Amino acid sequence: MSRKAPDDGGLDAPSPDNPNATVDAFHRGGFCLVQPKKGGHRAGMDALVLAAAVPGDFSGRAVDFGAGAGAVGFAVATRCPNASVLLVERSPEMADYAERSLAHPKNAALASRVSLLVADVARAGRARAAAGLADRSADFVLMNPPFNESRDRATPNPLRRDAHVAGETMFEDWLRSAAAVLRPKGRVALIARPASLAKILSAMEGRFGGAEIVPVHPDAESPAIRIVVRATRGARGDVSLHAPLFLHEQADNRFTPLAEAINAGEASLFMD
Amino acid sequence: MSRKAPDDGGLDAPSPDNPNATVDAFHRGGFCLVQPKKGGHRAGMDALVLAAAVPGDFSGRAVDFGAGAGAVGFAVATRCPNASVLLVERSPEMADYAERSLAHPKNAALASRVSLLVADVARAGRARAAAGLADRSADFVLMNPPFNESRDRATPNPLRRDAHVAGETMFEDWLRSAAAVLRPKGRVALIARPASLAKILSAMEGRFGGAEIVPVHPDAESPAIRIVVRATRGARGDVSLHAPLFLHEQADNRFTPLAEAINAGEASLFMD
Repeated sequence: MSRKAPDDGGLDAPSPDNPNATVDAFHRGGFCLVQPKKGGHRAGMDALVLAAAVPGDFSGRAVDFGAGAGAVGFAVATRCPNASVLLVERSPEMADYAERSLAHPKNAALASRVSLLVADVARAGRARAAAGLADRSADFVLMNPPFNESRDRATPNPLRRDAHVAGETMFEDWLRSAAAVLRPKGRVALIARPASLAKILSAMEGRFGGAEIVPVHPDAESPAIRIVVRATRGARGDVSLHAPLFLHEQADNRFTPLAEAINAGEASLFMD
Repeated sequence: MSRKAPDDGGLDAPSPDNPNATVDAFHRGGFCLVQPKKGGHRAGMDALVLAAAVPGDFSGRAVDFGAGAGAVGFAVATRCPNASVLLVERSPEMADYAERSLAHPKNAALASRVSLLVADVARAGRARAAAGLADRSADFVLMNPPFNESRDRATPNPLRRDAHVAGETMFEDWLRSAAAVLRPKGRVALIARPASLAKILSAMEGRFGGAEIVPVHPDAESPAIRIVVRATRGARGDVSLHAPLFLHEQADNRFTPLAEAINAGEASLFMD
């Protein structure tokens, strides 16, 4: 799923003020992102699939944890006209891309509902509130956390090595923060690798209930490459496993109608 | 999935020596079960789907935990000509049905490879070994545990109420026993409700690795009603989520080709 969305009208257009950046359109031009051409994380289908976990009629405050250039948050803002969105990103470099995305003229219609906070969502307690993430301030938290901590592992910077050690408890840290930031009955949704399922369910225990899982498969015959998990703060309810999302038809590798609609920002992942 | 297998040639044929029993054929007549007509658990597709988690070329000793009348164990014996099977059932009443199934002339070709032990698989330590379940004696453990402990809850018998209390830790108890009974690199496979996923993964932690999950859906649009989870004793490896099994075509509600083949004992659930 590093594959790009199929409808990025401004594909790889260089950003006029930054030769290392591109401007990419998503949701059939509904929003664009200024992204690093190389090196940093480039948004793709994962972000659009995750944003589709928010019902189109959602109204309230959505917070995008680890927002990068803002893909998930912008996708939610585009899909949900009554949502306000807070992008939270700890890397000043990626936050700068989010800032540029916010300032891009093509996003002018969304900009009044999207804001940016440079902060580490893994912070706990007072440090988190001091960083600008107030308790019980959100109605929906979305997270598309890094899948591979090897970047942190490779760097000789000791602070980054600490960040890698923290990576072992990433779902615990992020979901603890999500539980604190959400209002009662607020929801969280995340996209991750199936390999992380046990850690995710374990970190949700006692904080979130009624977890709904949608497996995402390349096609009907292949194992899942992602899971989307959505759950409700303070709810009881057991885990349920919903109809899977198959990204491609087996016959000709084209996108399935549902994947196509999600790429276009026109479908919900859950039936609600 | 209380639905019966579609190919039960001897459907509901009364057992000549027990008017409360029926003799039902499975796997297109590959084996039959003597089962209670009412009251007790009657085997159906769950058992056949679980048995399909064992590769057809499996050779060694398979143990069916909570075997009832023996559906899972007989299905494994039919599918795997090089397997020997031990049925383990704690209820003397259900064990009697398993005994009758073993003695049935239609199962004569299998009977030399299938045996029965009346024991409670939830026992721990020496009590389990004393009951006949020796450590490191099995290559595959299968379990289709009771989904609903309400029968235990309803009974006034204090021993049965204890059994219900134990029900809260059922996956922990059964998987602990499976881990003890299996040889290193032996495998376990179970079928359960998706609601039990967190408990199952938690009980597998530190005992089993490389868990492979196959969700079972009534059709492509509906949530999963069952999960099959297969894992390896002492392995590391993360959770993977395999291609789902859809039981019915959406167009006409007929069985899908894969469900049909599993009912007939002719297909494996996993690609191996």
